Amino acid sequence: MAGTYPNLGEHVVVQDIERADAAVIKGLAECGVATVHEAQGRFGLLSEKMRPIYSGARIAGSAVTVSIPPCDNWMIHVAVEQCKPGDILVVAPTSPSNAGYFGDLLATSLKGRGVAGLIIDGGVRDIRDLTEMQFPVWASSIFAQGTVKETLGSVNVPVVCAGGPVNPGDVIVADDDGVCVVPLADAVSVLEKAHAREAKEAQTRARLTSGELGLDIYNMRERLKEKGLKYI
Amino acid sequence: MAGTYPNLGEHVVVQDIERADAAVIKGLAECGVATVHEAQGRFGLLSEKMRPIYSGARIAGSAVTVSIPPCDNWMIHVAVEQCKPGDILVVAPTSPSNAGYFGDLLATSLKGRGVAGLIIDGGVRDIRDLTEMQFPVWASSIFAQGTVKETLGSVNVPVVCAGGPVNPGDVIVADDDGVCVVPLADAVSVLEKAHAREAKEAQTRARLTSGELGLDIYNMRERLKEKGLKYI
Amino acid sequence: MAGTYPNLGEHVVVQDIERADAAVIKGLAECGVATVHEAQGRFGLLSEKMRPIYSGARIAGSAVTVSIPPCDNWMIHVAVEQCKPGDILVVAPTSPSNAGYFGDLLATSLKGRGVAGLIIDGGVRDIRDLTEMQFPVWASSIFAQGTVKETLGSVNVPVVCAGGPVNPGDVIVADDDGVCVVPLADAVSVLEKAHAREAKEAQTRARLTSGELGLDIYNMRERLKEKGLKYI
Amino acid sequence: MAGTYPNLGEHVVVQDIERADAAVIKGLAECGVATVHEAQGRFGLLSEKMRPIYSGARIAGSAVTVSIPPCDNWMIHVAVEQCKPGDILVVAPTSPSNAGYFGDLLATSLKGRGVAGLIIDGGVRDIRDLTEMQFPVWASSIFAQGTVKETLGSVNVPVVCAGGPVNPGDVIVADDDGVCVVPLADAVSVLEKAHAREAKEAQTRARLTSGELGLDIYNMRERLKEKGLKYI
Amino acid sequence: MAGTYPNLGEHVVVQDIERADAAVIKGLAECGVATVHEAQGRFGLLSEKMRPIYSGARIAGSAVTVSIPPCDNWMIHVAVEQCKPGDILVVAPTSPSNAGYFGDLLATSLKGRGVAGLIIDGGVRDIRDLTEMQFPVWASSIFAQGTVKETLGSVNVPVVCAGGPVNPGDVIVADDDGVCVVPLADAVSVLEKAHAREAKEAQTRARLTSGELGLDIYNMRERLKEKGLKYI
Amino acid sequence: MAGTYPNLGEHVVVQDIERADAAVIKGLAECGVATVHEAQGRFGLLSEKMRPIYSGARIAGSAVTVSIPPCDNWMIHVAVEQCKPGDILVVAPTSPSNAGYFGDLLATSLKGRGVAGLIIDGGVRDIRDLTEMQFPVWASSIFAQGTVKETLGSVNVPVVCAGGPVNPGDVIVADDDGVCVVPLADAVSVLEKAHAREAKEAQTRARLTSGELGLDIYNMRERLKEKGLKYI
Repeated sequence: MAGTYPNLGEHVVVQDIERADAAVIKGLAECGVATVHEAQGRFGLLSEKMRPIYSGARIAGSAVTVSIPPCDNWMIHVAVEQCKPGDILVVAPTSPSNAGYFGDLLATSLKGRGVAGLIIDGGVRDIRDLTEMQFPVWASSIFAQGTVKETLGSVNVPVVCAGGPVNPGDVIVADDDGVCVVPLADAVSVLEKAHAREAKEAQTRARLTSGELGLDIYNMRERLKEKGLKYI
Repeated sequence: MAGTYPNLGEHVVVQDIERADAAVIKGLAECGVATVHEAQGRFGLLSEKMRPIYSGARIAGSAVTVSIPPCDNWMIHVAVEQCKPGDILVVAPTSPSNAGYFGDLLATSLKGRGVAGLIIDGGVRDIRDLTEMQFPVWASSIFAQGTVKETLGSVNVPVVCAGGPVNPGDVIVADDDGVCVVPLADAVSVLEKAHAREAKEAQTRARLTSGELGLDIYNMRERLKEKGLKYI
Repeated sequence: MAGTYPNLGEHVVVQDIERADAAVIKGLAECGVATVHEAQGRFGLLSEKMRPIYSGARIAGSAVTVSIPPCDNWMIHVAVEQCKPGDILVVAPTSPSNAGYFGDLLATSLKGRGVAGLIIDGGVRDIRDLTEMQFPVWASSIFAQGTVKETLGSVNVPVVCAGGPVNPGDVIVADDDGVCVVPLADAVSVLEKAHAREAKEAQTRARLTSGELGLDIYNMRERLKEKGLKYI
Repeated sequence: MAGTYPNLGEHVVVQDIERADAAVIKGLAECGVATVHEAQGRFGLLSEKMRPIYSGARIAGSAVTVSIPPCDNWMIHVAVEQCKPGDILVVAPTSPSNAGYFGDLLATSLKGRGVAGLIIDGGVRDIRDLTEMQFPVWASSIFAQGTVKETLGSVNVPVVCAGGPVNPGDVIVADDDGVCVVPLADAVSVLEKAHAREAKEAQTRARLTSGELGLDIYNMRERLKEKGLKYI
Repeated sequence: MAGTYPNLGEHVVVQDIERADAAVIKGLAECGVATVHEAQGRFGLLSEKMRPIYSGARIAGSAVTVSIPPCDNWMIHVAVEQCKPGDILVVAPTSPSNAGYFGDLLATSLKGRGVAGLIIDGGVRDIRDLTEMQFPVWASSIFAQGTVKETLGSVNVPVVCAGGPVNPGDVIVADDDGVCVVPLADAVSVLEKAHAREAKEAQTRARLTSGELGLDIYNMRERLKEKGLKYI
Repeated sequence: MAGTYPNLGEHVVVQDIERADAAVIKGLAECGVATVHEAQGRFGLLSEKMRPIYSGARIAGSAVTVSIPPCDNWMIHVAVEQCKPGDILVVAPTSPSNAGYFGDLLATSLKGRGVAGLIIDGGVRDIRDLTEMQFPVWASSIFAQGTVKETLGSVNVPVVCAGGPVNPGDVIVADDDGVCVVPLADAVSVLEKAHAREAKEAQTRARLTSGELGLDIYNMRERLKEKGLKYI
C-alpha cells in the first residue's frame, strides 16, 4: 500500500518506513527552509498559511504522515505509536478544516517519544502549554474547537499537506520561514547542494558587508542595459 | 429591553446587569479557553480570527457588551462608564469592518477603571502602547484607520461578536487559544465541569508522560479494528 | 519621467530624488503611525495586510520606490544602489504575489548602506536572520519561495503599494500598527499637527488617568441625548 | 429548552414552533432583503459570504434551525421531518467548515415537503441538479466533499448562522443581495415599515427618473456647505 | 487642488474635468480589458476582487472619482451632479469596507444622466434591480448593509481604487475580465497600440485555428532547447 | 522521470503518457464530480477555490499536466503540442499566483486540437471569448494580468494542483461542483462504483419523492435514540 495515495475506503497503518540518516537530517535542519528549498530546485515548499505557533524554532525530522478525516483526530492517536525519536508528525485532513486537532496531551505523548514537532494543515490549541513545553508546531490555524474520534484515516501513506506532496520518511525542514519537504531519496544530494549554496552565500555576504553591490557581484549591469533600463 | 437584540432603531444603555461571582470568574480564567470550551459542550467559542495583540495573557471577566455601527466608536466611550473592575468590554460592529476603533486613550480609561481587557470584532491600534501598559486585547484586525463619532448603538444588549452570541454579564474567557463565552447561568456548572476535566487530564498526562499510549489509555484498539483499520 | 506612473514599457531608474529633512523624519518616527495618520487627515495608511516581521520596531525614512514585476526581484538589486542612509525601500509588485523577493543577503547589503528598513507588498524570507540582525521589514507575506531575475521594472517612480500611493522621497512611517505614507511636501506641516495632537492627547490622558470619563472630557452627553440614546 | 442556545451536551429536537402568518411572509418576500433590512433598523443581515447558488430567486419562509457539528450532516436528515410547506431550513455548523453537507437527495426530500429553500453556513453540492429543480440555496461554499453521520446536534434551537442570530420561526428573507432574518415577533411591524419604505422610495424613484437630484430631494446642499465642502 | 490626493481635512468637489474623446473611449471599450491592459504595458489593472454583478457587460467611460469615508455614501449623492453622459463613477472608500454604498435609487439617478456604469471598491445592493435595468457595476462586494450620510469626502480628486491609481477623466475600461484604467494623456496612444495588438492577434488566431502551434508561430523551440528543456 | 515530481532543476516534457479508455472517461463525465468523488472514497477533490468560468459544463478527460513557474506561461505553449483530442490540460504553478496565464489564443489552439477544457490553479482572462467559444475552464482566479515567457517547467510530470495530486493520464472530472481527479489505475473500478451509487441513489430518490423520510429509509431513528437525541 505504501507508495500510493489512500483511497477507495481502505485505511491502513504502515508500520515500517525508511528514514534518512540522522546526520543528514541534522545538516538539513541547520541549513534552514529557505536554503534547502533553493538547493532542491525550489520544490517542496508548503503553503505560506503554515505558520509556527512561536518563533525561533528550527527543526528537521522524518515525516510520519497522517491522512485524517476533517474534524476528526482519532488517527493522530494511532500515529503516535508509529513515531520514533526525531520524527516529525505530518497531519493532512482530507478536506480543509480549521478545527483544533491537537493540544497539550498529544504533545506530551509525542514529546515523551522524542518527536521533534508537528506539521498540521489544520488547527491546534493549548498554545500556551505547547510554548512552555517548547514543542514546536507549524499549523494553518489556531483554534480551540475540538474534534471527534469516529472515522478512520491512514498512517504513513502519501499525503498532500498544505499543497505539498509528502511521503512517509521524507525529511521535513521547518523554521520561521515555513515548512519544506525533502524527498527521502534526495536528502543526501540536497544537503550537499545546500552546503555548497551556503558556502557561496558566505562569500557573497562578506563582499556585500564590505560595501560591494549585488549589481557588480552578480554582473548585472550589462544585462540590465541590454534589456533597456534607463538611468535618469 | 435587555434580553433581546437591538433593532428597529432603538438605542439603549442598560445600566444594571448581573455578573457572575468573582471566584467563579477567577476559576474559569485559570482553566483557560480550551478546557472551558470543552467543559461546556463545545459551545461559545468565537471565530479564530480573534487573536491576542500580544501573547501570554489569560483573563476572564463579565461581558459589558457594545453594539456599534461600523467605523464609528462613539458607543465605546459610552460603554466605559458602565464598566466595573474585572469586566471585559465586548465590542461588536453591526457590519464587518476592520477600522481602528480602539487605542491607548480608551485603554487608559478602561485600565483606570480596572477593566480586564477588550474583545473586539474589528480593528485596534497603538499596539506598542497597549503592550507596554499590558492591556490585553483580542481583535480581528490591527489597523490604524480612525473612526467617527456620529451614530448611536447600544450598551449591554445581546450581541453576536465574531460569530458567537454574547449576553451582558456572560463570562468571557480569553487566552492565546482565542475567546470563549460562558453564559452567566452556566458559569458555576461549567467551572465544575472544567475542574473535573482538568483532574482527569492531569491523570492522563501523568500516564502519557510515563510512556503509556493514548491508544491504550482510551481503549481505542478494539474499536479501530472493528472499523477496519489494517496494520501492514 | 519622475512624477508619472511607469507604463508603456519604459523602465527607468531615477537617481536624484528629493528627501525630507532628517529632523522632520526623526520627529515623525517618534510620533508613530496612528498619530501621524490622524494628523494628516487619515490619509496614506497602507493596507492592514502589511505586518512587521518582528514587533517593537518604529522607524521613518525617505521612500526609495521600486515598481517590480510579479515573482521577479531583479530591480531590488538595482534599487540598493539608489539608497542613502536613513532611506526606506518600498517595493510594489505590479501584480499581486506572495513570492519571497527579499532575504538576508539583500538585507545585509541594505543595512551596510544605512537603510532603515523595507516595506514590501509581497513575501520575505530568512525571518530568523533578519530578526537577529534587527533589520525591520513590513511585508504582506512570509514565504520562502524564490523569485527570478528576468524582467525590468523601475526605481523611484510613483507606485501604489498595498493600496497606498507612494512617491519617491515621501516619508514612510512604520511601527507595530502598520505603515503610513506622508507626502514629501506635507512632511513639515504633518509633523506640526502630530505634535499638536500629541500635546492634546497628553492632557486627555492625564485626565483619563485621574478618572475623568471621555463622555465628560469630550462633552458627549448632550449630543447623545439629542440623538435619542436612552439609559435604562 | 427552546429559547436558549444548545450546550452542555444536550441534543434536542423541538417539534412545535410558532410561525409567522403566511401573508406576512409573502409580503416580506416581495419586499426583498435590502428593503426589509433597512425597515427593521439594519438588523439581522447574515454575512456577505452567503451567496445564492443561482441568481434570481427571492424567497421568504419560517426558519427551521439546525445546529450541526462540523463535517457531519446527520441532523439535516432529522430536521427534514420538522419542516412544513413554506419553511426554510437554516443550517449552522458549530465550527466553521466548507464541507458539502447538502445535495440533490436532501433537496428532493425538502422540495417534496414544500420547503422553500436552504440557508447553510457551509458547503453544498450537486449544483447543477439543484439549479435544474429550482431549489434555491444560499451557502458560504460550493464543495463536493461529503460529510459523516456520527454526531448529534439539535433542531429548532437558537443558532448563530453566518454571524446572525436565528430563532426557530423567525422569518428568513433571501434574494440576490443575501439573507436577512426577521424576528418572529417583529414580522408584522417590519412588513409595515417595509411597505412604507417602498412607498417612499417609489416617490423618490419617480423624481429621480424625472431628472431631479438626490442632493435636492434630500435637501443635502445646506448641510454639505455647513460641514465645509468646497466646490472648485 | 486637482492633481493631488485629498488629505489634511480638505474636502472638495472639482467641477470641471477634462475627458477623453468619445471615439477613443468607444474604441477602448471594443478592445476590452485584457487587450487594453497589455497595450499599455500591463499598467492600470484593478484588483481581481472587482467583479461584475452580472456577466456580459463591456463598457468604457471617463472617470468621475469619489473619495469617500468608510461606511458613508453621502459623497456619491454629491458626485451624481458632476456626471455627464458616458461617464463612469469610480468610488474609493478611504478605508476598506464592504458596506452596501449603492443601490437601485442611485442607479436610477445615474442612468437617467446617461452614466455608463459604476466601479466601487466596496459593496453594492439591489442586485436584481440593477440587473433588470442593465446598469453595470463592478464591485468588491455584494452586501445589503446600509451606510450613513455624515462625513465629507471629495469628488474628482486622485484616488486609489482597488489598488490602482485613478485620476478624474482617466478612461475606465471594464468587462468580464475586470477593470483597467487608462491615463487620460495616454488614451489615444493606448488605443493605437491596442488596435495594433488586435490586428496581430487576429493573424495569430487564424494560424492557430489552422492548426499551427504557438511553439512554431512564436519560434520558441530553439530557446527552449537552449534553456535545457528535455523531451523524453 | 515520469512517476516522480520534478525537482533539482530538471525540466522535461514526457511525450508518451497512458490514457484511460474513452468509454470510461465518458462514463465518469456523466456521473459528475460529487458522485465520482464519493465512489472513490472521497479522494481526489481539488480545492473549492477552483470555480468554472461559466456554469453548466460537465466534462471528463485525460490529464496533460503542466508544472509551471509562477507568473510565467511559457510551458503552456509547450504543453499544447502534447495534447490529444479529449484531453484536459492541468496547470499547476509551483508557487501561488493569480496571474492571467491563459486567454483566448491558447484556447483557440487547444480547442483546435480537440482539448476538452482547462484546469488551472491560477488566473484566466478573455472570459467573454472563452464563454462564447464554449471552452470550459476551472480556475482559482479571473485576472487580466499577463505573464512572461522566461523560465522552464515540465510537462506530464506529477503535480499538485489546488491541493490535489495529479499524475499525467489521470482522469479529470469537472462540473459546477468543482474538479475531481481519478487515478488512471482506478478509473474502471471507480466508474463501476459510481454506477452502483447512481443506481442506489435513483431508488432512494424515488422513495424520497414519494414522501418517505431519509430517517426511515436509512434506519436512523434507533441510532439517534441510542446517542441520546430527545424530541420535545
